[in-house]
Amino acid sequence: MSEYTDHDITGASIGMVEKQFFTFAENDPGFLLDSGASLSPVTLAYEACGTLNSQKDNVILVLHALTGDSHVAGYYQAQDPKPGWWDIMVGPGKGIDTDHYFVVCSNIIGSCMGSTGPASINPETTQAYGMDFPMITMGDMVRAQKALMDHLGLDRVLCVVGGSVGGMQALEWCVRYPDMVGSAVILASTTRHSALAIAFNEVARQSIMADPNWNQGHYYTGAKPDMGLAIARMIGHITYLSDESMRMKFGRKLQNKSALSFEFGAEFQVESYLQYQGNKFIERFDANSFLYITKAADYFDLAKDHGNGSLAKAFSAMKSRFLVVSYTSDWLYPTYQSKEMVKAMKKNDLDVSFCEIDAQWGHDAFLLPNPRLSDMIRGFLRSARYES
Amino acid sequence: MSEYTDHDITGASIGMVEKQFFTFAENDPGFLLDSGASLSPVTLAYEACGTLNSQKDNVILVLHALTGDSHVAGYYQAQDPKPGWWDIMVGPGKGIDTDHYFVVCSNIIGSCMGSTGPASINPETTQAYGMDFPMITMGDMVRAQKALMDHLGLDRVLCVVGGSVGGMQALEWCVRYPDMVGSAVILASTTRHSALAIAFNEVARQSIMADPNWNQGHYYTGAKPDMGLAIARMIGHITYLSDESMRMKFGRKLQNKSALSFEFGAEFQVESYLQYQGNKFIERFDANSFLYITKAADYFDLAKDHGNGSLAKAFSAMKSRFLVVSYTSDWLYPTYQSKEMVKAMKKNDLDVSFCEIDAQWGHDAFLLPNPRLSDMIRGFLRSARYES
Repeated sequence: MSEYTDHDITGASIGMVEKQFFTFAENDPGFLLDSGASLSPVTLAYEACGTLNSQKDNVILVLHALTGDSHVAGYYQAQDPKPGWWDIMVGPGKGIDTDHYFVVCSNIIGSCMGSTGPASINPETTQAYGMDFPMITMGDMVRAQKALMDHLGLDRVLCVVGGSVGGMQALEWCVRYPDMVGSAVILASTTRHSALAIAFNEVARQSIMADPNWNQGHYYTGAKPDMGLAIARMIGHITYLSDESMRMKFGRKLQNKSALSFEFGAEFQVESYLQYQGNKFIERFDANSFLYITKAADYFDLAKDHGNGSLAKAFSAMKSRFLVVSYTSDWLYPTYQSKEMVKAMKKNDLDVSFCEIDAQWGHDAFLLPNPRLSDMIRGFLRSARYES
Repeated sequence: MSEYTDHDITGASIGMVEKQFFTFAENDPGFLLDSGASLSPVTLAYEACGTLNSQKDNVILVLHALTGDSHVAGYYQAQDPKPGWWDIMVGPGKGIDTDHYFVVCSNIIGSCMGSTGPASINPETTQAYGMDFPMITMGDMVRAQKALMDHLGLDRVLCVVGGSVGGMQALEWCVRYPDMVGSAVILASTTRHSALAIAFNEVARQSIMADPNWNQGHYYTGAKPDMGLAIARMIGHITYLSDESMRMKFGRKLQNKSALSFEFGAEFQVESYLQYQGNKFIERFDANSFLYITKAADYFDLAKDHGNGSLAKAFSAMKSRFLVVSYTSDWLYPTYQSKEMVKAMKKNDLDVSFCEIDAQWGHDAFLLPNPRLSDMIRGFLRSARYES
């Protein structure tokens, strides 16, 4: 659910990419949402790389996590300090090989990364939506992505790939559009948010809404709820790591390597790291978007929404092949949740491969370079391609 | 580290108790702290129950957790809605049997429950200390408790008993006063805070300090940082539970048992529960005390403070017998941390019993009724008594 960038980028990058925009639902009744509300117009930011073949059967749809964006790989400009968030996986010769596949990554509605969200202008008021933005669901995000695929003339997806909240979208894709999705890679994800995951999200939301600058969501012309959003991010960041990874990375090391200061402030390195992550986040993310997207994740419950409480039933129309990956130290969406998913898939005789990767880096592990994961995805896509 | 009260209280209570106060260090140089600062005067609130025998060899010192107090068992008044925080363990015929033992429970310095803390009046300014209160350590807390024991004329403690932050104090007692402590019961505790534990505490502190009412700690004559403190408590509360306990207790149950509202606010029961816990907490606890005590817990590091980095060395002067208990679902102070402690004790040929209790309730398990724990403590105290 977060972006982890302090690692070496290996292999070639796809080079330059361009963020593109697709706007739809300009006219009545607009884009109808699961809540019953409607949104008009709707813009999605997206990026594409690789080459679409003549049969249009080499499409990979990559779905990003909570605070991600469409910039999955490559650079906007030569001088960019870093590439897209999954450049380690998407590129020539990489796990998702752009020499073979046409990769599309769409930003989600509700985000602040180019798509319509609470920071967008509400045409009815000519002001930013703020909390007048309607509640959105994972299903809404996916139906908007479907509109994008229609617009691009793509009626078949070789594979949907997503980690964390991106994995939720991938699952939703398979449930809603079974005839369109050949296969799916679900990384460090779940079919529904646990009470623990909801609890962390709710506390993070409370910290934003407790910031007086939040002002009921109307802050776009004044000071922003930076402190609340930074704290929300710090809470999230803890859940993306693990006891083990924090022990290895920080332990009890002091920031200044000398004795205790006996003062408040960032004394331990882990404190300093979290504050850095919080402060970095407020530069790039909108607090209201954080509220809406976390709520969509909390609402996510495939069994309830599509199976009347039964996950096996929710999966009964699915036709995709699956690769499901969990990580031993991921305590946000632990392995048992992936196993539940796999069990429900197998009940429907779906072709599913499951792997629990032994990794100490917690939930964030899916964003870190891992040759084993790259090889697994490469092999899975190859067989999906030959069988499609 | 929290108080869990929604359970049946079994067995008889000790009945009426009275909070008492002991004040010392009124004169120069006051009470010298580990930080180098001094505090004057120092008051400790404490309570006692059971009867001290003529040999004065039946003393049990109970040490409370982060936000606890001296009110370990019994009632202040007949109409009190609930007894002290460990009434399930302390009383006639209970695990710590007041028919046999004289039980003392002392509040910690830095607290707001009757002892000197940041909400106390600074004699130099005649205002509340606020952030002028000096930083305190677990060692300071224990040295103040030692002064109380001296005052009470108790030069030998049959057993020090503590869970969580209380367990840290108990360990500190054994390290600092090896000739005084016959035995110790350490529940759900650790010899040092991990990066994960520090991280959660730091985010909780940040949420208090981000509340504009906090006002650099000067809020005692105006509005209090209630929202920040409530969020801090919510963060803490999540760490006291477990994925499993939250799933069993709340799952994805909605507060109003009907459909999703598609609105922000406490929709899921777990959200409502956390908000309730946060709001209940602000009625009884002081935000600055929370800052100081969590910092003392983060500073706690027996190996560094007493063993030049070696836990075995830190424990080398210890003479007590130990009962160490951890809980399978405690992810704040996981079992491996208790095992490290036990290993260092064994290296010093100390008499130590270790038990990992299979419990789903997370860190809070040590405060819940558990006949196995009661029996274990009863048996441990009995043999400690016969061997003393």
